[in-house]
Amino acid sequence: MNGASQEPSIIESVARRARVASRAMLSVSSSEKDAALSAMREQLSKSKDRILEANVADISAAKARLAEGKISASLVKRLELGGAKFDGVLTGIASVRSLGDPVGECSLSRQIDDGLQLYRVACPIGVICVIFEARPEAAVQIASLAVKSANAVILKGGKEAEKSNAALVEAIRAGLKSVNFPEDAVQLVATREEVRELLDQSKCIDLIIPRGSNALVKYITNNTRIPVMGHADGICSVYVDETASPSKAANIVVDAKAQYPAVCNAAETMLVHRSALNTVLPVVGAALAEAGVELRADAASKAVLDSVKGLKVVDVSAVDYDTEFLELILAVKVVDSVDEAIAHINEHGSGHTDCIITEDEGAARRFLGMVDSAGVYHNASTRFADGFRLGFGAEVGVSTHRTHARGPVGLEGLMIYKYKLLGNGHTVKPYVDGDKVLKHKDTPDQLPPL
Amino acid sequence: MNGASQEPSIIESVARRARVASRAMLSVSSSEKDAALSAMREQLSKSKDRILEANVADISAAKARLAEGKISASLVKRLELGGAKFDGVLTGIASVRSLGDPVGECSLSRQIDDGLQLYRVACPIGVICVIFEARPEAAVQIASLAVKSANAVILKGGKEAEKSNAALVEAIRAGLKSVNFPEDAVQLVATREEVRELLDQSKCIDLIIPRGSNALVKYITNNTRIPVMGHADGICSVYVDETASPSKAANIVVDAKAQYPAVCNAAETMLVHRSALNTVLPVVGAALAEAGVELRADAASKAVLDSVKGLKVVDVSAVDYDTEFLELILAVKVVDSVDEAIAHINEHGSGHTDCIITEDEGAARRFLGMVDSAGVYHNASTRFADGFRLGFGAEVGVSTHRTHARGPVGLEGLMIYKYKLLGNGHTVKPYVDGDKVLKHKDTPDQLPPL
Repeated sequence: MNGASQEPSIIESVARRARVASRAMLSVSSSEKDAALSAMREQLSKSKDRILEANVADISAAKARLAEGKISASLVKRLELGGAKFDGVLTGIASVRSLGDPVGECSLSRQIDDGLQLYRVACPIGVICVIFEARPEAAVQIASLAVKSANAVILKGGKEAEKSNAALVEAIRAGLKSVNFPEDAVQLVATREEVRELLDQSKCIDLIIPRGSNALVKYITNNTRIPVMGHADGICSVYVDETASPSKAANIVVDAKAQYPAVCNAAETMLVHRSALNTVLPVVGAALAEAGVELRADAASKAVLDSVKGLKVVDVSAVDYDTEFLELILAVKVVDSVDEAIAHINEHGSGHTDCIITEDEGAARRFLGMVDSAGVYHNASTRFADGFRLGFGAEVGVSTHRTHARGPVGLEGLMIYKYKLLGNGHTVKPYVDGDKVLKHKDTPDQLPPL
Repeated sequence: MNGASQEPSIIESVARRARVASRAMLSVSSSEKDAALSAMREQLSKSKDRILEANVADISAAKARLAEGKISASLVKRLELGGAKFDGVLTGIASVRSLGDPVGECSLSRQIDDGLQLYRVACPIGVICVIFEARPEAAVQIASLAVKSANAVILKGGKEAEKSNAALVEAIRAGLKSVNFPEDAVQLVATREEVRELLDQSKCIDLIIPRGSNALVKYITNNTRIPVMGHADGICSVYVDETASPSKAANIVVDAKAQYPAVCNAAETMLVHRSALNTVLPVVGAALAEAGVELRADAASKAVLDSVKGLKVVDVSAVDYDTEFLELILAVKVVDSVDEAIAHINEHGSGHTDCIITEDEGAARRFLGMVDSAGVYHNASTRFADGFRLGFGAEVGVSTHRTHARGPVGLEGLMIYKYKLLGNGHTVKPYVDGDKVLKHKDTPDQLPPL
């Protein structure tokens, strides 16, 4: 599209400025990054009135669209930045600031030969593009992680939060500027049309993190050659084994399905061992009835569940086992063994998080080993699959990919490494000619002097 | 193309079988993998005559094409499997066997709350597709790494080595089968037409590693949404700083350029600090003249280099600084500072490996910190950028990407991790409601019991 013009487009300029900022950030110290985070926080606090004014404008526009039936009430709710939420945003920056500096961590130190020393040292990936919908506080959280990890970030927010995001990023950049931190470390692009052009900036963008609907993630994965980190579906399963404790099963299934059904780590399928049909399933069914969950059950489980008082049960159809309901609906299937449960999950799951409820350690071991998902849980709710709950301090997203980072991704997922090799005039020729031999001695206590 | 048919194509079947094998390998033990590697080695040794017969057939066909001028003499040479090379192939398997098992390594152990324990445990990526040209011994090396890491691999070899690859993989699979290891852990596809279809198997292939020409790597990156690990260009630079030792500079530049110019870690550009023009450059120039290197120099360096006896020097053109020559040609440019050298490398290099020659630690520190490449070397030849030389035991390739793995990639690059969470009926509700608080206490000595 830009072939005829020599002038870079707005998006090209944004991407190039991000690359320049990312290069400049290669020399910032830990204390400069922490000062930048403090300045961001201070500036956001000072700009609170202006930000909330912008947020109110977004919310009224969204309410008008809600009245027209164009967006959902939950989307309007997620836009809100006022009250305790704003304080939470500020606290979040302090919490990222308090994390250890991930840059410079040395994960390998090896003597290659006398006077020739190798180090593998953590460094930022470079330029990250995060595409997110609604939830304007995500802009602040991601910007904090970017600054802490010395990555430049291009934020592409949703249309509904346009004014809120603009006010937040304006304050963030003012904060960065006030302490002479590269302000292009955080940039915002807003309109929907720009996504396509962002996906073409493979020279200046190193990683795209989409946070949003399935449709968004799939569109992005299919339309860029930049690496993508994220997840499309979140089809999590809970398997109730033959030795499952009925009370643990009831508690965990209800928590995994009903505690907050609209999220990717909520359960969508319950697998039940045939031997647990008459012992455990009625207890779980009663708890699900109380939680208002509708079950879509196969014949064997329906025969049992139909007699649970107040429980809505309908016949399952094949597509239900591949569906992320994101509401109070749970597909149910009976299996004859832990291996059948494993096979079902590996075939129909999305590699996000799956749980076995059992008192049998052998079955748990097999399930945890053979289920090919980012999270494999024993007697614990799938809802724990979250960077904050697992203690990563902050989260850029959950990855169901099998490279780079998997599961809930915190600061570590924004890092890569470089190899530093320090010599004294070393050449490969004597080793190739066989005059000298490489030593390859690990020296874990030695840190890079340069 | 297969929309109308329900029958899977050959490539789809290969990919699905690889996925099945990768799932089966989730339960193999270290000793089973080592036994499989020993059996591979034994079977290759037994099949030596048949393999070398196939290799001779490939070589004669290649010589005929060489006579027609269709392929290069070096390609013919790279096909050869006989003599010491065959023994090297067998030794290579033993060397991979002797590496530590990368599966199951625990990189995080954390108490989330009483009775709720998190572990991050290394596991295979799943299904890897390696596309390689010529060099049939690569098939054995990659198969060994796949077995050791419990990944299934689909090998796509070059047409010239078709018979050799088929004989090698037949023996490998027979070896795996003899010890009841999933033989589909290693599969071979041969014809050029199949590459395109492999690139579409995103459901069953998790990572593509292209090892070959720039054109091949670029084609693959542009035509798949499967993650790709590798490098296109290898434009490595050596920067001769103002305090460079003339003898170190001469040795390193000659080694980096001329020891083996046809490889990605050979230097293509020499940057020289203006203050070193009359002190260091003439010494380096004389050494390059002796090594038969042609220089493409800017005006300032040419003025000096023109008086070096026996040195061929021509005027550089802008494109030379973006060219991977892969022969005895070196682009030369004069810079006024280490920062100008860094800026040139970050703009024109390919992020592979770059070297500074200096006796000034401050300059070295700045170069190593600010050059945004996988390898940043001080007073050491770029030719060290190689998995074997750096002690990784084996190499699947060199990555210039900025995610997952960077630089020379050994076994670690074939691994990812899963999170195991072991509870006792834990749900998130009490933590969300504020009735309980998460502990997040790292327990580095604790290993996963399941």
